[in-house]
Amino acid sequence: MKIVKKVDDVRKEVKKARKEGKTIGFVPTMGALHNGHLSLIKASISECAFTVVSIFVNPIQFNDPADYKKYPRDNERDINLLKKEDVDLLFIPETEEMYKERAETYVEVRGLSDVLEGKFRPGHFKGVCTVVCKLFNIVQPDKAYFGWKDAQQLIVIRKMVKDLNIPVEIVGCPTIRENDGLAASSRNVFIKEDDREKALSLYNSLKKIEDMVLKEGIKDTSILLEEGKSIIAKYTDVELQYLEIVDFENLSPVRKIESKVLVLGAIKLPYVRLIDNIIINV
Amino acid sequence: MKIVKKVDDVRKEVKKARKEGKTIGFVPTMGALHNGHLSLIKASISECAFTVVSIFVNPIQFNDPADYKKYPRDNERDINLLKKEDVDLLFIPETEEMYKERAETYVEVRGLSDVLEGKFRPGHFKGVCTVVCKLFNIVQPDKAYFGWKDAQQLIVIRKMVKDLNIPVEIVGCPTIRENDGLAASSRNVFIKEDDREKALSLYNSLKKIEDMVLKEGIKDTSILLEEGKSIIAKYTDVELQYLEIVDFENLSPVRKIESKVLVLGAIKLPYVRLIDNIIINV
Repeated sequence: MKIVKKVDDVRKEVKKARKEGKTIGFVPTMGALHNGHLSLIKASISECAFTVVSIFVNPIQFNDPADYKKYPRDNERDINLLKKEDVDLLFIPETEEMYKERAETYVEVRGLSDVLEGKFRPGHFKGVCTVVCKLFNIVQPDKAYFGWKDAQQLIVIRKMVKDLNIPVEIVGCPTIRENDGLAASSRNVFIKEDDREKALSLYNSLKKIEDMVLKEGIKDTSILLEEGKSIIAKYTDVELQYLEIVDFENLSPVRKIESKVLVLGAIKLPYVRLIDNIIINV
Repeated sequence: MKIVKKVDDVRKEVKKARKEGKTIGFVPTMGALHNGHLSLIKASISECAFTVVSIFVNPIQFNDPADYKKYPRDNERDINLLKKEDVDLLFIPETEEMYKERAETYVEVRGLSDVLEGKFRPGHFKGVCTVVCKLFNIVQPDKAYFGWKDAQQLIVIRKMVKDLNIPVEIVGCPTIRENDGLAASSRNVFIKEDDREKALSLYNSLKKIEDMVLKEGIKDTSILLEEGKSIIAKYTDVELQYLEIVDFENLSPVRKIESKVLVLGAIKLPYVRLIDNIIINV
């Protein structure tokens, strides 16, 4: 695995691989790698002859500077993890390499970026789209891999790619869960052992809703959400930021489940914010 | 010259040319071609083995719907003109091909887009950047050619390309002028013969400023602009929208000319708006 810090070096390595006729797969990450990331990397390696991984904690997607500051970073551990996989190129730029000389350009997907996560993290998806657009231009991959764990991010990026005619195929990979069901996330390292049950309340709520739909045939989302919310409400120091059932394509709220939907939620423990979602296909 | 209307066909043709090892040059236009466009096309042909021209009147860059509606369009004439040059591929998409299924993604360069033209045409450069970003993603050229006639556009696009790491070289070509000095523009077809002198007042003002700097050594921009504005003020039905002397790089107003500057202006005759500029290098 080659490790580079400069945009020009990424281009050089990718150009070489492309000259050899290799398909380029790309997995952009913010590091603090977990099994979710590894599943994306494995997917890329299985489908592409040349896999590029990037590690960059993107400051402009953090609406909360404190969150940016404390976001877990451990390049050494990440590099060792990646070396065990068959990754061809790792791009770890400094912030100055990505945003030099007062960058002023932003890519924004209206509408889809303003709901759900966007309501609680204003500007978040603008920051995500901008950095992902930049990384796509730097790596110029054939395929890029994103996890369904960040469902809205995946949908926003797909929309950006389509709207801007970016020549890349976006591959969505299933959410990877820890043994107890908690969705793999870099932020899970913050969860205290005693709070595990609280952290799991969101997933338990999603599972309950899924059961009600698939086993009991309940389609009325107001009933489903009421029940789902009650599971989280048991924990007084868990703040439910949102729990919604929305159309799989356009993220607009659904009254009655009649096609593929996403059930998404965000909870806040006093010291960590967690998101999760499930897809229900009736 | 091959003419295509679909994004996929552009990609197919460009891919073929690239496989043959050809450098791809690109000249995006809104049609109503004049000698300015032809100079860009000739520059591309002289530097690149494969030249792509696009004709697309981009609705989202017109802040004024009436201006969009009356913008000159003559594809037949344009195609005949292009056939005489050595253009390899002409892309003439329909609006639906460029903006399908409620496009919601916008590319914006803050700061540079908000001054000068941006003040008088809110949203204009956001529309320009979005369509140019799309066209770059569709054509994936090595070099793209823009005229200095639209100086702010050129500077904004260069900034976008740099900020978003778009892998294209932006080539700026000198303003082409008609015999009497009027900058070549698609909108010149609207100018009534009797109004020629009025239309020329902006260029005469720019030339006067240039003379004052280069021949008389006057560097104080307030003096220069006062003199320049007085030339336009002679014509009562010519509205001067702005006349400014700004830094060549960041477009911020300059008090005293000490390095490369742009002198830019916009005037409005009752039925047509015209822009022009000169570069002064002291």
